[in-house]
Amino acid sequence: MTHRRSRIESLSNPLVKRMRLLREKRHRRAEGLFLAEGLRIATEAREAGILPRWLFLAEEGAAHPLARALIDATLASGGEVIDTTPAILSKLSGKDNPQTVVGIYAEPRTALSDLDRDAAPIWLVAERLRDPGNLGTMLRTGDAVGAGGLILLGESTDPYGVEAVRASMGAIFTQRLVQAEWDEFLPWLRSGRGELVATWLGDDTKDYQAVHYAAPTFILIGNESQGLPQAYAEAADVRVKMPMMGKADSLNAAVAAAVMAYEVLNQQRS
Amino acid sequence: MTHRRSRIESLSNPLVKRMRLLREKRHRRAEGLFLAEGLRIATEAREAGILPRWLFLAEEGAAHPLARALIDATLASGGEVIDTTPAILSKLSGKDNPQTVVGIYAEPRTALSDLDRDAAPIWLVAERLRDPGNLGTMLRTGDAVGAGGLILLGESTDPYGVEAVRASMGAIFTQRLVQAEWDEFLPWLRSGRGELVATWLGDDTKDYQAVHYAAPTFILIGNESQGLPQAYAEAADVRVKMPMMGKADSLNAAVAAAVMAYEVLNQQRS
Repeated sequence: MTHRRSRIESLSNPLVKRMRLLREKRHRRAEGLFLAEGLRIATEAREAGILPRWLFLAEEGAAHPLARALIDATLASGGEVIDTTPAILSKLSGKDNPQTVVGIYAEPRTALSDLDRDAAPIWLVAERLRDPGNLGTMLRTGDAVGAGGLILLGESTDPYGVEAVRASMGAIFTQRLVQAEWDEFLPWLRSGRGELVATWLGDDTKDYQAVHYAAPTFILIGNESQGLPQAYAEAADVRVKMPMMGKADSLNAAVAAAVMAYEVLNQQRS
Repeated sequence: MTHRRSRIESLSNPLVKRMRLLREKRHRRAEGLFLAEGLRIATEAREAGILPRWLFLAEEGAAHPLARALIDATLASGGEVIDTTPAILSKLSGKDNPQTVVGIYAEPRTALSDLDRDAAPIWLVAERLRDPGNLGTMLRTGDAVGAGGLILLGESTDPYGVEAVRASMGAIFTQRLVQAEWDEFLPWLRSGRGELVATWLGDDTKDYQAVHYAAPTFILIGNESQGLPQAYAEAADVRVKMPMMGKADSLNAAVAAAVMAYEVLNQQRS
């Protein structure tokens, strides 16, 4: 077991400079790393067996029992623990009032072929998702409903950006995450069991409660402003709509995913 | 009928300078005005009978049939129509790619005593809501489920900020919005019909589907990071919990509101 624990107090330290660049997508891609803030999220990651390559802690944070467990596990897994200052944590996270713990994690690269679709009865699929808050919220909802993960189709916002990671509340570590194109996704889906359910604002839809969903259910949600392309909706096994009682004709994408996912979960548990 | 239509092309025009300050809360409060972007939202407002005091349009936007209807209605109601440039719209909205229409509206000031609780079977109540995206999303969901409005308890993010208005997708104009303290809200609630349903992570909860909700149902959602104060949960008629199948113990606040609201709606329509 290697024990690597050091102290950094200088804002111009090269590792700090390098790690703060992870706030930019191109640096995350180049390094294959991302940043997650907070003891709670790092503890969820640890409980899922995922430990940071680098763990930055401010003094007040390091004394917490959960932080000690995190420090031990990080060192045991070969990661580095760095005692540092609130100013450096602030520089890393880009927040004025930073959390007392920042972890730097390897980005998992998961392909469709890595997924075991029968591992979970629900999967979320989102097309060209634009808003990082929506993306993180979908991961969080996926965890709550016992989904296996989130499949992102097309050009979406980066799931490893700080805002998406924050909104996921740790689910970035517990949900599988795949980025794929529709042209890969559909053949993969059709190569095994699974029902594709499109939330759709057009014609030929059923009330979302009038359908009996078969597991594994893949819930397909369209882009925030344009919805799903017609061809995607037509390729789905069923197109569903939530009742809309007011002036609006659609729900927020993360809300639509959640209302659908809870309906599927409720059918499974009843 | 007064016809007031003018043209502004200078970024230093005093009205433009004054209106762009509405991006700051203290100026919104002082002026009693707020800003909403986009032809779609302004059209929803118009259909709800709400017209802007000032309507800014870029040339390309003014030609749209919905924009013409908006221009006519704005002038007829005594508002001013200002033909302007994309650069000025960008300055007003703070966005690089602004919408072609920006409306400046009077902030409605609605008190609890102004509400007719029997006008709708569902009301959303949120306590110390912090995130403007969540707030706007709750308004949008409220519209979708046929709620009467959103009651904000305690110190919340400003519902008339640009981000909340944008996330509401026009529901800021169709849902009633009240800001109140708990100490006013509870006596008001108890002065008439209405069931208070708290989403609660503590003990003494029922599964959210095991309860029969009586209209008008007031769905109470707690602060994003701290949840509801115990006293609020105890004052509720019933405390409910959604099933949580994963590692997480809670949902995003706007998601929790939506999952609850659709359950209440589904009971009403079945």
